[in-house]
Amino acid sequence: MIVVIGGGPAGRLGAMHLAQAGAEVRLVEQRSIGGQCLHERCMTICALNDVARLIEYARTQKDLGILDSVPAVSYPAIRRRICEVQEKLSSVLDVETRRSGVEVVYGAEGRLEGNRVFIGDEEVRADAVLAATGSRPAVPGFPGTDIPGVYTYQTLPAMPDLPRRMVVVGGGVVAAEFAHIFRAFGSEVEIVARHRLLGDLDPKMRSAALRDLAGVGIREQAAVASIEGGARVRSVLLADGEELAADAVLLATGLVPRSESLQGLEKGPDGAVVVDSRMRTSVKNVYAAGDVIGPPYLTPAARREGVVAAENILGRETVMDYEGIPQAMSLRYDYAFATVGADGGVTLSAPAPAGPGSFWDVAGGWAGLAQIRVDPGSGRLIGAAAGVPGASTLLSYLGYLMKQGVTVGDFDDIVEVHPSTDGVYGLARYAAGMLKKKE
Amino acid sequence: MIVVIGGGPAGRLGAMHLAQAGAEVRLVEQRSIGGQCLHERCMTICALNDVARLIEYARTQKDLGILDSVPAVSYPAIRRRICEVQEKLSSVLDVETRRSGVEVVYGAEGRLEGNRVFIGDEEVRADAVLAATGSRPAVPGFPGTDIPGVYTYQTLPAMPDLPRRMVVVGGGVVAAEFAHIFRAFGSEVEIVARHRLLGDLDPKMRSAALRDLAGVGIREQAAVASIEGGARVRSVLLADGEELAADAVLLATGLVPRSESLQGLEKGPDGAVVVDSRMRTSVKNVYAAGDVIGPPYLTPAARREGVVAAENILGRETVMDYEGIPQAMSLRYDYAFATVGADGGVTLSAPAPAGPGSFWDVAGGWAGLAQIRVDPGSGRLIGAAAGVPGASTLLSYLGYLMKQGVTVGDFDDIVEVHPSTDGVYGLARYAAGMLKKKE
Repeated sequence: MIVVIGGGPAGRLGAMHLAQAGAEVRLVEQRSIGGQCLHERCMTICALNDVARLIEYARTQKDLGILDSVPAVSYPAIRRRICEVQEKLSSVLDVETRRSGVEVVYGAEGRLEGNRVFIGDEEVRADAVLAATGSRPAVPGFPGTDIPGVYTYQTLPAMPDLPRRMVVVGGGVVAAEFAHIFRAFGSEVEIVARHRLLGDLDPKMRSAALRDLAGVGIREQAAVASIEGGARVRSVLLADGEELAADAVLLATGLVPRSESLQGLEKGPDGAVVVDSRMRTSVKNVYAAGDVIGPPYLTPAARREGVVAAENILGRETVMDYEGIPQAMSLRYDYAFATVGADGGVTLSAPAPAGPGSFWDVAGGWAGLAQIRVDPGSGRLIGAAAGVPGASTLLSYLGYLMKQGVTVGDFDDIVEVHPSTDGVYGLARYAAGMLKKKE
Repeated sequence: MIVVIGGGPAGRLGAMHLAQAGAEVRLVEQRSIGGQCLHERCMTICALNDVARLIEYARTQKDLGILDSVPAVSYPAIRRRICEVQEKLSSVLDVETRRSGVEVVYGAEGRLEGNRVFIGDEEVRADAVLAATGSRPAVPGFPGTDIPGVYTYQTLPAMPDLPRRMVVVGGGVVAAEFAHIFRAFGSEVEIVARHRLLGDLDPKMRSAALRDLAGVGIREQAAVASIEGGARVRSVLLADGEELAADAVLLATGLVPRSESLQGLEKGPDGAVVVDSRMRTSVKNVYAAGDVIGPPYLTPAARREGVVAAENILGRETVMDYEGIPQAMSLRYDYAFATVGADGGVTLSAPAPAGPGSFWDVAGGWAGLAQIRVDPGSGRLIGAAAGVPGASTLLSYLGYLMKQGVTVGDFDDIVEVHPSTDGVYGLARYAAGMLKKKE
């Protein structure tokens, strides 16, 4: 029998892959299937952002005189409804997982002591183990993080209503996503970032993304000294002495692997279980996948890692390939990018064409951005990025095509649906023309 | 010199392609650059649908208690604003076209008499001609089509305000798109279709699309006897005697090529200029592209035809390939599909995953549809369809991948952005698993 610990994207996909291949699989999940992805991260942000975008688009169209009003949001209703939909999706996942032949055990904790496997207090015999116990939000060390009204993405569903003033601590994608959402809902939002907000993004993509955060207060190179308050949070005190009033504080300060229950495996300094490219841990027949092995903390990567682990458990040598995996952020527009191979090449950027979801933004003079990086010698597309409605779907396929070695000349054969917000194919065709001229 | 007649997608892209290759090009456009695509069809539908979708999504979220209200639309403001944005986009296209080296002549009509070329009254010498004069709406033969209040997509921008009751005559994509838009805006809408509404669609895709037309009255196998009214339209009289009251009637009864000014060329019975796969007409050195050569009447196809004509004018033998070109329809969701090769294969369908734009629809139990057609021998994906938010972007790249011979096994390497409404990759992976088992 094979034991899979954790029913998030990595564990669930790995378990199903094993069962479909005929293996006997027991999946141990403490709470509800779907992991943080369904219950606290991806899908929650998707749900909130679907409402946030509607309100922002309504605002644009109201400013143009097209709509007569902008709806207001009821946050308690959102909270309640998100839970309902998540339960629905979770039961769909439960059925899908069982149907594939996986035995699902809820409520017990799966634990490891070296190669010994425990489900709750009971030791079980297993031919192999896939440990996919996920991650949890990192909580910074400054005082006050336990005051009521201070949330992480995990506890945010308990927030009773919209805060009038929210401080978001963090400088990454998740900080930006939540700041954008609560600003759209009508809260006053301040972001406090230790370094530069979204500092890892390409500068042009970053500028584009910052447009979507208009109205959000942004403090960079700023350290939090403490969170102040008593029965409720009152403010965030910065190291430079400034005090930011707050009815709610959201800590979006990263993730840490959740590996306490996995004893006897080699781990990194942050607790991430160390694996090789085949998802093998330091203990024979014990594999790990998903957030518990550390970054990139992306659902699609976790899923793939789970499948790679399963393949290797089945004796089919398969290695994990992170190249071309798209990364994305959801603000008013999607921001998505993927790269393959080394740095270098020639970068081209252009305003994106107006299309579904961005037509009315043309009135304000901005319909998004497209960007490519081309290797001038081979004509290969080695990087692509877009900040437009639908960029995530676009980059999913561009990431794959880049891995396949697509050249800018190949874009002559890509026939889009019109109108389209995809500016990448236009840039690629332009680049192909330039390369032809150079010849 | 090369003369291009018509500044729509076919003529404009062809002209730019020629100019970029160093040719001397004169583009003759009677009105404004961008063609019907920008001024009356694709972009107008996109603009209206961006508002229609917002209103429908607001309705869903209001029903869930998430939003407190649904905005109402001001149709006169939409009309005015669409024109403003279209002028903006047209001037962008004008600059882009000139910058590529094309000389643009506005206001005059380009005409052909065999291989003689006229711009207005003046005959000009041309080494080659690209005729891209487009199409116009077909107006049916029954009486009353000239009564005020009867529109085609071309005259619709003149409609002063939302009708209380609109009758849409036609059974195709455009009829469905406008019916959906005006229903969302609050008009009572009846569709009168000679045969089955959207009868060319795959049955499951059709059922999915019809969900988006809930609230629209649909009469199939119904012939219009006449449109009744005096100073204003009053009703549509059907052949079976039924009379449908109407404040506005929209004729969405197809297109006819606009080829009257192109004399001496071989034409089909509907006036379509006959071309070969290299876009050559029956007259030497005269090429044609776009709607004037007949179906599929799609902007991306027209653009590509323009480029193919240009390549052949430049002496580079290139043929037009219609395989894998995606077709699409915009209702509440996008409906898009593409196929390659022959019929046959195994068809699989599944509900699409919930993601951006469809999360809240899960509460109502429907988040769209995905469908694939697989050749079981080779594993090749030979058809794909989706009815989800973002389906158009998805199918643009799937169409290309299918032409490249992508197999369902290849989808293991496609790593999506999560959450995603793309159900095609899930189906393809499922199919790959099934094929593996059969081995």
